[in-house]
Amino acid sequence: MIDMTTDNHGDLIASDRVEGTAVYNRQGDHLGKIANFMVEKRSGQVRYAVMAFGGFLGLGNDHYPLPWSILTYDTDKGGYVVDLDKQLLDDAPRHAPDGRPDYDDSYGRNVYQYYGQIYPW
Amino acid sequence: MIDMTTDNHGDLIASDRVEGTAVYNRQGDHLGKIANFMVEKRSGQVRYAVMAFGGFLGLGNDHYPLPWSILTYDTDKGGYVVDLDKQLLDDAPRHAPDGRPDYDDSYGRNVYQYYGQIYPW
Repeated sequence: MIDMTTDNHGDLIASDRVEGTAVYNRQGDHLGKIANFMVEKRSGQVRYAVMAFGGFLGLGNDHYPLPWSILTYDTDKGGYVVDLDKQLLDDAPRHAPDGRPDYDDSYGRNVYQYYGQIYPW
Repeated sequence: MIDMTTDNHGDLIASDRVEGTAVYNRQGDHLGKIANFMVEKRSGQVRYAVMAFGGFLGLGNDHYPLPWSILTYDTDKGGYVVDLDKQLLDDAPRHAPDGRPDYDDSYGRNVYQYYGQIYPW
């Protein structure tokens, strides 16, 4: 177990501490875990956290890009909390772990819109 | 080997593809590799790429925080290129892999100043 409470370093978090962290919703359902996240190369801005969800023992799960802005770290839970109903994931944008799509503007707008967020780029 | 050329996805790069990537200088010297990077939790802005350098077979190396903005990805080299002389690392800010400092503003300004960059926060 990673002790996130001692690895926060103020306002910053290490990339390898984000990966693997659990994601819950406000009802306390365990939704999945962060597989990785997508960074804009030039500016260094994180655009998506990619959540692994579904499958069995981590096999066959899908990857769901989430707007970074909808995730809040909860030190009590030791994971990220997002305000979304589990059913919302049924139709959410997703891809196979080895089938990452072209994250172009059209795809990005679709993801942000799905979660009720403004696509800021 | 990670084929970075097929994993770029436009302007975005996956966090786990950044980790482990080699870092060279303009003279072609291999300086180290990216251990991880530090992200501002709220905004999702990457502030530092942390380069592992020194030691033997990856043991005993130090971690050098570099301003994200000084790294450029070079598809030919398959790694990041930074414009810095190897000797500059002799006195550069560094820490043990398990001794990550408090990345506060004072530390950040020191790192950015060391590499001739303006600390933008």
